[in-house]
Amino acid sequence: MGQIEQVVTRERSDNRVRIDFQTEPARYRHWKLQVDSQIAMLVMDVDEKAPLFDGYDLKLNSYDLGVDIELADAIERLRFEHPTVRVLVLRSAKPRVFSAGANIRMLAGASHAHKVNFCKFTNETRNGIEDFSENSGVKSICAINGTAAGGGYELALATDYIMLVDDGAAAVSLPELPLLAVLPGTGGLTRVSDKRRVRRDHADVFCTTEEGVKGKRAVEWRLVDVVVPGSKFDEAIEARAREFAAQSGRAASGPGIKLTPLARKFTDNGVEYGTLAVEFDRPARIATIVVRGPAASPPASAEAMVAQGAEFWPLKLARELDDAILHIRLNELEIAAIVFKSSGDPAYVLAYDRFLDANQRHWLAREIRLLWKRVLKRVDLTSRSLVTLIEPGSCFAGTLAELPLASDRAYMLIGGRGGDNKPPASIALAEANFGAYPMVNGLTRLASRFLATPGDVERVKAECGKMIEAEAAQRLGLVTFALDDIDWDDEVRVFLEERASFSPDALTGMEANLRFAGPETMESKIFARLTAWQNWIFQRPNAIGEDGALKRYGTGHKPVFDTRRV
Amino acid sequence: MGQIEQVVTRERSDNRVRIDFQTEPARYRHWKLQVDSQIAMLVMDVDEKAPLFDGYDLKLNSYDLGVDIELADAIERLRFEHPTVRVLVLRSAKPRVFSAGANIRMLAGASHAHKVNFCKFTNETRNGIEDFSENSGVKSICAINGTAAGGGYELALATDYIMLVDDGAAAVSLPELPLLAVLPGTGGLTRVSDKRRVRRDHADVFCTTEEGVKGKRAVEWRLVDVVVPGSKFDEAIEARAREFAAQSGRAASGPGIKLTPLARKFTDNGVEYGTLAVEFDRPARIATIVVRGPAASPPASAEAMVAQGAEFWPLKLARELDDAILHIRLNELEIAAIVFKSSGDPAYVLAYDRFLDANQRHWLAREIRLLWKRVLKRVDLTSRSLVTLIEPGSCFAGTLAELPLASDRAYMLIGGRGGDNKPPASIALAEANFGAYPMVNGLTRLASRFLATPGDVERVKAECGKMIEAEAAQRLGLVTFALDDIDWDDEVRVFLEERASFSPDALTGMEANLRFAGPETMESKIFARLTAWQNWIFQRPNAIGEDGALKRYGTGHKPVFDTRRV
Repeated sequence: MGQIEQVVTRERSDNRVRIDFQTEPARYRHWKLQVDSQIAMLVMDVDEKAPLFDGYDLKLNSYDLGVDIELADAIERLRFEHPTVRVLVLRSAKPRVFSAGANIRMLAGASHAHKVNFCKFTNETRNGIEDFSENSGVKSICAINGTAAGGGYELALATDYIMLVDDGAAAVSLPELPLLAVLPGTGGLTRVSDKRRVRRDHADVFCTTEEGVKGKRAVEWRLVDVVVPGSKFDEAIEARAREFAAQSGRAASGPGIKLTPLARKFTDNGVEYGTLAVEFDRPARIATIVVRGPAASPPASAEAMVAQGAEFWPLKLARELDDAILHIRLNELEIAAIVFKSSGDPAYVLAYDRFLDANQRHWLAREIRLLWKRVLKRVDLTSRSLVTLIEPGSCFAGTLAELPLASDRAYMLIGGRGGDNKPPASIALAEANFGAYPMVNGLTRLASRFLATPGDVERVKAECGKMIEAEAAQRLGLVTFALDDIDWDDEVRVFLEERASFSPDALTGMEANLRFAGPETMESKIFARLTAWQNWIFQRPNAIGEDGALKRYGTGHKPVFDTRRV
Repeated sequence: MGQIEQVVTRERSDNRVRIDFQTEPARYRHWKLQVDSQIAMLVMDVDEKAPLFDGYDLKLNSYDLGVDIELADAIERLRFEHPTVRVLVLRSAKPRVFSAGANIRMLAGASHAHKVNFCKFTNETRNGIEDFSENSGVKSICAINGTAAGGGYELALATDYIMLVDDGAAAVSLPELPLLAVLPGTGGLTRVSDKRRVRRDHADVFCTTEEGVKGKRAVEWRLVDVVVPGSKFDEAIEARAREFAAQSGRAASGPGIKLTPLARKFTDNGVEYGTLAVEFDRPARIATIVVRGPAASPPASAEAMVAQGAEFWPLKLARELDDAILHIRLNELEIAAIVFKSSGDPAYVLAYDRFLDANQRHWLAREIRLLWKRVLKRVDLTSRSLVTLIEPGSCFAGTLAELPLASDRAYMLIGGRGGDNKPPASIALAEANFGAYPMVNGLTRLASRFLATPGDVERVKAECGKMIEAEAAQRLGLVTFALDDIDWDDEVRVFLEERASFSPDALTGMEANLRFAGPETMESKIFARLTAWQNWIFQRPNAIGEDGALKRYGTGHKPVFDTRRV
C-alpha cells in the first residue's frame, strides 16, 4: 500500500494507511516551486516511482492524489508565504509532455470512494487556482510543451491563459470517453462548455477524439489561447507573464508568513489539534469536531497579526479544520455524520471578526478570509451529514456561525443544563456572515437559507453582534430546532441513530441537492452536475466491470459494452 | 409481460413488447377527465389490476408508466381539444389517499434503463403541467385529500397551488430515502428547494421523515399552500378554481380541434408515419428519422388551420416526431445514434413558419409552437447521439433547422452529388429560431451555441430567410462540417461507427453535459443535477443489491447497507 512516508503514514493502531494532506516544498516529490519576486513558476516533474499506493508508476507526468496534495500545498504557500507573487506559470519538466492526466492504473485499481474523493479534492484545488486569480489578483498561465491529456488539460483549463507549443505534435485532449469509457473527472466538460465556451459540436468532436486537437484548430475552437513555435515558446511565456504581473491588482507586499507544520496528535479515537479536537465514535459512526474559540482578544495591529503568523487564531483554526475535514473524508469512510460543537467566548470570536473587517485591505487578513471561504466550501461539499449542536459554553458567533448555517440541521439547547451553571447557549452574527463566505452557488449561506424570504436576511442582519438565545434563534430561522434539556439527549440521539441507519448513497445525493438551492455557477455545475454523472458512470459495468474499459485498458483486449443506451 | 392491450402491444415480429405512448380518454384506465367549460378536473383513480407489466398491482393510486402516459395525453387534450379551459384541478377518487407515488414493486423489478426512462418521461409530463400554466395561462391546483407520498407529492409540486385536507391524517411526504434508499425521481428535491424554496434544514427533516408532514407545519414549511378542514374542502377547491379561472390570461376560445389517432405502421425495420419515417439499421445501431416537409403552402387563414385540425402539417409532424422519439427511447434501447434527415421544399417550411408567426395570437398557432418547444426539448434530453445530415433535397429551414441545432453534430454536403441533379443542399433560418423554442436552460439553441460569441447570433439573424449553402453555413457556425461528395460517405460512416463503439453510458453523460451550457433553470437542474444523482443511486448496491432497500422492501427484512459514505 502506502509508499511515500511523508504523505501516507501508518499511525493508526489498526495499521490502516492514513492519507496525509500536510506537506511542504522541501518534501515535494513531484513539483518544483520557483519564486522570482513577482513570477512564480510551478514545474510539474512527477517522480514516477513515488505513487501514493503500490501498483502503478506515475509515468509521463500522470498524477494521483499524492501529486495533487503537493499542488494544493504549493498554491497555499504562494498565497501566504509569497505575497509579492503576481502571476503563476505552470510548466512541465518532461520533454514533449505536459501531463498525461490522472493515472489510469491508479483509477482502475481504486475503490469507488477513493475515485470520488480524489476527483473532489482535485476539483477543489483547481477551483482554488481560479479563486487565486479572481480574488487575489494572481493570474495563471499554463505553458503546454507537448501532450496535455485528460486531467493534464483540465489543469490547464483552470488557468487563465493556455499556451500550446506549435510543433506538429503537441496537443490538448480529453480522451477519457474514447479511451476509458468515463468522463473527465476534474471539471473538464464544464470548463470546456462554460468557461472556454467551446461550441457544443466542436466540444463533441474534441471529447471523442483520442488524440485531441492541436495547432491552429485548437485556437479556433477556443481550446487554447495561443499556439507558439517551439523556438519562441520561452520568450512568449516570459512576455505574457510580465504582462499579467503588470496588470495584477494584488495589493500584497512582502514578506509573507511561514505556514508552519500543523501540530497534530492522532490517537485511536481522534485527532488533537491546537484549536480543535476530533473525536470518533466509530460504533455510532459519528465524528465530533469541537472547535475552540480564541483565548484572548485579537492582536493590536496588522503588524502584530503578521508577527503571529500561522499562530494567529483564525488562520490556525482554518488550516486545522481543513485538515480535519480532509482526514475524515479520505480516511474515515464509515463516518456517517459530522457533529460540530464549539467552546469558548463568543465575544472574542466577534472581536476577531471585527479585527479582520478592520484590516480587510491588508493582504494577510484578506487571504485568511479567502481561506475560510474555501474551507467552508469544503465543508459544504463533504458527503457526510452535517449537524451543529449549540450548547451552553459554545461560541458559534460570526465566522463560526457559518458552521451551523453550513449544517444540514442545527439543534440548540434552550436555557441551562441540570448540574451546570453555564449561561444559556447563544449564537451571534457578524458582518462576515453577509458576504465574506459565498457558497459555490455564489450566495451567502444566509441568502441560500432564506431564498423564499429574502427579507429574513435583513431581519437577522439587524441582530448583528447580539447574543441570540435558542428560542429567538429558532424564531429568526437560524436553527432547526430549539429544545429544552428534557428533550435534548433523546432528540439528538434519535437523529444521529437515524442518520446512521439510512443508505449512505441516498444521503449523499439528497444532501448534494438540498444544500445548494438557487443559482448555479460553473463551480456548482462541476460539483452538482458533472460529478453526479461521473459518479454514475464510475459505477457502471461498461467502465468498471471485468470487461469494462477501465479494467481492460492496456491489456490489449478491447472492452465489451452493454450497448443499451440509458 | 404486457397486460394492457392499448398501451402495450405485440406488433414486432420478434414478439418483443412495445410500449405505446398513444391513447385517448375513452381508453383511459386510470384517470377521469371532466371538463366543465373553464374548469377541468383530472381525477386519479388508478385501476390496480391494470399495470403496464405483470408482477405488481397499482394499489393506493400508485403509478407506473402506463398511468403517466394517460396523464400526459390528458394534458395535451386540454391544450388542443378544450381551449376554453382556464384552470386544472388534480384530485383523487380514492378515499383518504391522493397517491402513493411510483409503484415500488414496479421500480424494484424494472431494469435500470426502464427506471431512467420512466423518470425522464414523468419529469417531462410534470414540466408540461408547469408550461401549461406559465405559457397557456392554465393554472393548476392539486387537492390532496389524504396521503400524497413520493411521486404523489411530486405531482402536487408540479401544480401552482397545493391544498391539503386537515384531518389529522392527511400528509405530504417524500419517503424515498428512508424507505427505499433512493431519491425522489420526479424533481421532488429540486422543486422543494427551488420552486417552493423550503428552507434547507426543513427540507432535510421532511425528506428523511417517512410519514411526512401534515397540518399547520406543512404550511409553515411551505410544503403546501393551505390546509382546509375536510368539511370545507370541496367548497374551498371550487372557490380557488373559480378565482384562478377569473385570473387566467388564456386567450383561447372554443371549439377545439380533435387530436385524432396517429396513423402509424410498424414494420420490422421501421415506423411509417404521415410526415416522417423511422428506419432502423439495428446491426449498425442507427435510427434514421426522415422528416418530410409540407407538400403545399400553408392554409389561407387561421380558420382554415383550425379546419385542418390534427392534419395541419406543423401539428401533425410535431405529434409524430414526439411519438417516434419516445418509441426509440423506450422500445429501441440498442440504438446508439439518431440520424435526422429531411426531404421537401424549404420554401414551404418557411411559409408555414411565417404563417404561425402571423397567427401567433391565435390559440391554436400558439399551442402548436408550444408543442414544438416541448418536442424539441424531448429531443435535447434523449440519451442517444444526435446527428443531422443535410443533403440535397432536404428542407432544414425555420423550425426544422432546430434539428441540426439540437444535434451533437451536423454534417452538410457541399455541392451536388454524382448521378443526382438536385440543387446543392441549403439550410435557412427564420424568426422562430430566435425565441420560440428555448431549451431547458432558458436559451435558444442558437444562443447556447454561440455562448462565447453572442454577436454571431446577430450575424446569423441577418441571414434570416436566405438559403445558406454548405460552406457558408460552416463559416456562420451553423453546421459542424461541410464536406464534399468525395469525403461524405466515409466521414459519416466513420463517425457513426465510432459512436456505436463508445461506451453508451459515457456518451450519455458527456452529451448531457455538453448540450446544456450556460445558465441553469429549475428544469435543467432537474435533468442535469438531480437525474444524474438519481441514476447513480439507482445503480448502487444499497438500493438495488440483493440486500438493498428496493429489493428488500416489503419482505419484512431490513436492508443491509455498505456503510461507507462516498
